Amino acid sequence: MLCANPYRGGTSLDKKPRTPIIIVNFKTYLEATGKRAVELAKKAEKASRETGIEIAVSPQFSDLAQVAEAVEIPVYAQHVDAVSPGAHTGHVLAEAVKEAGATGTLINHSERQLKLADVDAIIKHSEEKELTSCVCTSNPAISAAVAYLNPDIISIEPPELIGTGIAVSKAQPEAVTDTIRLVRKVNNEAIILCGAGISHGEDVAVALKLGAQGVLVASGIVKAKDPYIVLREFADSSLK
Amino acid sequence: MLCANPYRGGTSLDKKPRTPIIIVNFKTYLEATGKRAVELAKKAEKASRETGIEIAVSPQFSDLAQVAEAVEIPVYAQHVDAVSPGAHTGHVLAEAVKEAGATGTLINHSERQLKLADVDAIIKHSEEKELTSCVCTSNPAISAAVAYLNPDIISIEPPELIGTGIAVSKAQPEAVTDTIRLVRKVNNEAIILCGAGISHGEDVAVALKLGAQGVLVASGIVKAKDPYIVLREFADSSLK
Amino acid sequence: MLCANPYRGGTSLDKKPRTPIIIVNFKTYLEATGKRAVELAKKAEKASRETGIEIAVSPQFSDLAQVAEAVEIPVYAQHVDAVSPGAHTGHVLAEAVKEAGATGTLINHSERQLKLADVDAIIKHSEEKELTSCVCTSNPAISAAVAYLNPDIISIEPPELIGTGIAVSKAQPEAVTDTIRLVRKVNNEAIILCGAGISHGEDVAVALKLGAQGVLVASGIVKAKDPYIVLREFADSSLK
Amino acid sequence: MLCANPYRGGTSLDKKPRTPIIIVNFKTYLEATGKRAVELAKKAEKASRETGIEIAVSPQFSDLAQVAEAVEIPVYAQHVDAVSPGAHTGHVLAEAVKEAGATGTLINHSERQLKLADVDAIIKHSEEKELTSCVCTSNPAISAAVAYLNPDIISIEPPELIGTGIAVSKAQPEAVTDTIRLVRKVNNEAIILCGAGISHGEDVAVALKLGAQGVLVASGIVKAKDPYIVLREFADSSLK
Repeated sequence: MLCANPYRGGTSLDKKPRTPIIIVNFKTYLEATGKRAVELAKKAEKASRETGIEIAVSPQFSDLAQVAEAVEIPVYAQHVDAVSPGAHTGHVLAEAVKEAGATGTLINHSERQLKLADVDAIIKHSEEKELTSCVCTSNPAISAAVAYLNPDIISIEPPELIGTGIAVSKAQPEAVTDTIRLVRKVNNEAIILCGAGISHGEDVAVALKLGAQGVLVASGIVKAKDPYIVLREFADSSLK
Repeated sequence: MLCANPYRGGTSLDKKPRTPIIIVNFKTYLEATGKRAVELAKKAEKASRETGIEIAVSPQFSDLAQVAEAVEIPVYAQHVDAVSPGAHTGHVLAEAVKEAGATGTLINHSERQLKLADVDAIIKHSEEKELTSCVCTSNPAISAAVAYLNPDIISIEPPELIGTGIAVSKAQPEAVTDTIRLVRKVNNEAIILCGAGISHGEDVAVALKLGAQGVLVASGIVKAKDPYIVLREFADSSLK
Repeated sequence: MLCANPYRGGTSLDKKPRTPIIIVNFKTYLEATGKRAVELAKKAEKASRETGIEIAVSPQFSDLAQVAEAVEIPVYAQHVDAVSPGAHTGHVLAEAVKEAGATGTLINHSERQLKLADVDAIIKHSEEKELTSCVCTSNPAISAAVAYLNPDIISIEPPELIGTGIAVSKAQPEAVTDTIRLVRKVNNEAIILCGAGISHGEDVAVALKLGAQGVLVASGIVKAKDPYIVLREFADSSLK
Repeated sequence: MLCANPYRGGTSLDKKPRTPIIIVNFKTYLEATGKRAVELAKKAEKASRETGIEIAVSPQFSDLAQVAEAVEIPVYAQHVDAVSPGAHTGHVLAEAVKEAGATGTLINHSERQLKLADVDAIIKHSEEKELTSCVCTSNPAISAAVAYLNPDIISIEPPELIGTGIAVSKAQPEAVTDTIRLVRKVNNEAIILCGAGISHGEDVAVALKLGAQGVLVASGIVKAKDPYIVLREFADSSLK
């Protein structure tokens, strides 16, 4: 369950219904930088082990290696650039985050949007490097468009709800259900998550009830007084 | 000599004539990614110790922590973003590279150019976080403009020579001397380096003779058959 | 046939098989700037009238009004920004190009690529403002993704062939046929063009034979010794 | 006084004390788009003629030609790109805005910021094409940096005040006086303007008293109930 890229490959195991996924995006919060990134990742791993729910973490680039060294849960880069090895000072190379221990990468987060052609190139590059690709989208039509580019995961996040504490699953349930409906017309493989404003276990439960296969969260966990408590609450709500 | 930020502070030592500086930019070359980044940094440290010449390294973000753990020479990030801690997925936070062990950062490399206002903001942010700021410029006038923003280091690199093996110090000596002349009108503190095409010890020697206080190099070292040999050649040429 | 937005609306006329479309992108060529933009547009109009083939022109922003005043053929902006009216200095507003007389706009040309979410926003904004939206794509998968966003026109242009004189229709016929096949799975309305390297009448004829409904051309016309001759050659080849 | 580029050239007239300058930035406001751009420009011309104060206008790209045709006051593009004639679809060419009748261009407005090297390139390109270059800056240090690049005009605009109606000249007088002091150390030629929040004649009068040679305004004029009245108020206040 905790292998590098659990969403690909041909084993029959992969075809079985998956448990829900929770990806925790550390953004550039100080509460999740450096040592605190490692500590938070360990809490996520603990909650994952105790509940059987897959929890992944997405720390900053400079924390990837230490986090990946410290935990066995999936570790996502927050972004990679559409560059190949070479003369690209200051860019983020898929090969480098892979070697640092990342098992996947977020792509096109609303705070780090990409040109359309680069979304396509990075999905392909991630597949070649066996990195799980998780493309963030802002509405159902864009989700369906992205579905054509065959990422492993599509995460719908209405940007206007990010960081508000108003959960997408409650405030815009149709964003989730329309995404699922449109994506499934063209792509049966991609895992569909939702995010933005997820703050309570109930937000997670509602998201799953709407048909999402998990959630992408950030401040709801990272800025919580006790992130472990909230992680457990989210994971427990995923089991219901 | 190998302290985190040797270019600031008030000790009388800082005012003494410095030895030349060589900064090795690892870019996103596979030859300088992951384990090979650590190995190359160790070779740079060895050459630095043997010669007394300050050699700094600038690995990729995801390699910063391991490189900084492995060596005591200065370690530069290749770029940081003009963001504060917070909701900035996929960005590079000065605080994070600092905690990973970076002692400085390149800024505005020709392969990762920045808006003018961001160059200013990042220089200030670096100063607050005690990161040595090394701003790359493409011509003497821009160097002088940047001098007004008070970075620790200014490195003039004519973009048309980068990666060519044709050394700036030989092909465009006036780019170096004009930079020094213009910068010194307004800024006596900033260290002035030059880069682009530096491939041989003689290129370094000529650069220093022109008045540069060191060089910024990349492929000349990273893609050399034996980087240690070339590092020694560069360092030895700096001593003449 | 020469109405502002011939691709929408409910008249039965729209459902009839269309004649092929040739869109001439003036880029920022001096040969197609200012007065020469107007002259070139008039040649395009002449060739269109003589042959019955729809020829549209896409001049620079600052030439839109004069070109639209001078000719009755469709006039496309080369780009619009994803902004609404307001405080957006230096941006290109859909409302403004419309008022200047544009009937449509290119979107996401390989020389002016856009973030995925902006492609979506601009298509919608164009529809609201009754501007024909022509989205440029670089490969069949991206074309299919874009098809989900319902632009009026999709133009596949492999960037490596742009400006080479090596025609996409001859060098990469499968880029055209795959685009048509994938787009048609999800979108029966969008007009499909191809571009890049189109230099001879035969390139146009081959493109149409492959199933494209027209071509997007630039240097092949703009930099021709006698653009009218080549426009006629292209239009005549479209009739065969 | 109303010639294309009044800030260059060697006539003794140019050396005489200038009257204050008011540049009106039309941004992408609907109130200043298309026909309304022409109307607003005519009001600016009327106020300029009646008072002898130089008033310039900066309409959108697609309105440049009609505005320049309709009035004899200076007309600025809101931005030009750092491109030469050629294959640059969707970009703004200095040669094209010049041919459309622009006499100058804003550069690096806070809503359209540019890379440092592009600011330099565009200033040079503007000079070659005899377009008056007006570079916008956000603080005194950046203003001084830009002064080294020899633009014709430097306009300091603290971004946090833009559009607020809180005038820079009143809220941050030291931003203006520090800019003047720092710029004049290295550049005696550049005209220094200030902008952001200028709403009343008194804001203009205070700006001039602080040493600014004019103002850059936008919403204060464009969104005024009667722009002519406010233009006259601004111009009259400049005469005191």
